Amino acid sequence: MSSRTFSRLVRFVAGDGKTYYGDAILPHGVTDVSKALKAKLIEGDIFNANHNVTEKIMDIRKLLSPLALEDIKTVRCLGLNYAQHAKESNMPIPKFPVVFYKPVTSIAGPSDPIPVHTIVQSDPGLDYECELVAIIGKEAKDVSEDKALEYVLGYTVGNDVSHREWQLKKGGGQWSLGKGFDGWAPMGPAIISPKLIQDPQSLRISTKVNGKTMQDSSTADMIFSVAKTIAFLSQGTTLVPGDILFTGTPQGVGMGKTPQQWLNDGDVVEIGLEGVGSIKNKVAFSQTKAKL
Amino acid sequence: MSSRTFSRLVRFVAGDGKTYYGDAILPHGVTDVSKALKAKLIEGDIFNANHNVTEKIMDIRKLLSPLALEDIKTVRCLGLNYAQHAKESNMPIPKFPVVFYKPVTSIAGPSDPIPVHTIVQSDPGLDYECELVAIIGKEAKDVSEDKALEYVLGYTVGNDVSHREWQLKKGGGQWSLGKGFDGWAPMGPAIISPKLIQDPQSLRISTKVNGKTMQDSSTADMIFSVAKTIAFLSQGTTLVPGDILFTGTPQGVGMGKTPQQWLNDGDVVEIGLEGVGSIKNKVAFSQTKAKL
Repeated sequence: MSSRTFSRLVRFVAGDGKTYYGDAILPHGVTDVSKALKAKLIEGDIFNANHNVTEKIMDIRKLLSPLALEDIKTVRCLGLNYAQHAKESNMPIPKFPVVFYKPVTSIAGPSDPIPVHTIVQSDPGLDYECELVAIIGKEAKDVSEDKALEYVLGYTVGNDVSHREWQLKKGGGQWSLGKGFDGWAPMGPAIISPKLIQDPQSLRISTKVNGKTMQDSSTADMIFSVAKTIAFLSQGTTLVPGDILFTGTPQGVGMGKTPQQWLNDGDVVEIGLEGVGSIKNKVAFSQTKAKL
Repeated sequence: MSSRTFSRLVRFVAGDGKTYYGDAILPHGVTDVSKALKAKLIEGDIFNANHNVTEKIMDIRKLLSPLALEDIKTVRCLGLNYAQHAKESNMPIPKFPVVFYKPVTSIAGPSDPIPVHTIVQSDPGLDYECELVAIIGKEAKDVSEDKALEYVLGYTVGNDVSHREWQLKKGGGQWSLGKGFDGWAPMGPAIISPKLIQDPQSLRISTKVNGKTMQDSSTADMIFSVAKTIAFLSQGTTLVPGDILFTGTPQGVGMGKTPQQWLNDGDVVEIGLEGVGSIKNKVAFSQTKAKL
């Protein structure tokens, strides 16, 4: 009998218009979960090891963010966590993980648009960041590096959308403001179980903008591995199921190009992670009147 | 008939050992909700205007954080939001709100200890910050300043516990790491309805350490009012019920004293806000072995 816990957790709108958690079924020869058309329905709490992947097969009409808003707790992100990216940012290699946060409302799905509010449209600086994302599945406090990956529910890929002017200048030096808008952390297409990704530090990760490769690196270049980061963060701080960890981006961001290259309205950003699949999000400038 | 919505929302352990939401009953002549001994049981979702303050009166055995972990979404905090505090920190008056975050696990109750992990015990720099805290009660996006307070569920008082060495140096310039440990955002004793606090910008706010007054100011000194802050943050970002907003601290923090004065193991920090009451938390150095 096969395992009843998920391999590739998806949240999706089914043929009946309702939203479900499921275990994606990959067509023969396909490895990118964003191409999955069907999933096995999951019953029970996804954070509980007793959740049950049923034999009920459902059509996937649309893939959503693999965690629902009500299942998300704290969204932590690392800055400057790839050696080559720290270099392109003209920043020293950090001695400890550099941590900032995003609000839960920044999380979006693998094909959702990236809304850009009028208040940030007038300044240049809209940028992408491809990132390996780890989801915490069990309470972790003061865990050691060698046990840390036991607390991971699974891995996905995300875009830490950033506006450099607001991140680095108008935010008073604190990065979160320029990274926290609605939908500025699309992720997906699935949360891949550690059963399938035993070593998160050897995965190819990349960004394409309008089909052109902008970032192409490996999670092997990370300064603080997922395990090191979880062990570090869990010191005096309880990580809880539903905590999301964006683990930093490699070199190749628009800020690091010569000349700098910013995202514009209508640009399509595709981010891929080996063993996980890809997300593809279109930049959508909004028309909402600015109040600042 | 009196209103059925809460005036002073508390979460408490009752005589039966179970946890409830209630509306605190103040003994005659008492204004500090931390002295309440009884509460009327609340039924229904506290974020829904149809929640019901019943006539069932229960004993308060212990007051807890007025929001349960599962009811908390994103915890945002403002830095440098009092004119005199910006001055004592040698920082310029910010042009826009300076925003950082705490994890949901930092929230604690009005009499809980403040745990201090061994990793931050060896450096000097443990500090208090008394703050007016606003709780979001309704979804707010692109709201104007004059409507912003309509989205507030109520107000409470909190301590934005901070370790200056980790906040300002070891965190790589990002403040959250030195402010995000378990229990480093005690708040309470109650969430006071806007029915009772119509102007949050005229409240006396103070900190005592071991009985000695260290901060004593008024929310009138805030640079960005609660209304301005909510309007600002809601631009392109949906604030959701359960979002918590720490609005910054006035002058008088330990970092600003000459010589600097840091909290030590066993110190008792009492923080009060006019119209709300007080919280009293004891610093408790832990013995957990550091892994760094």
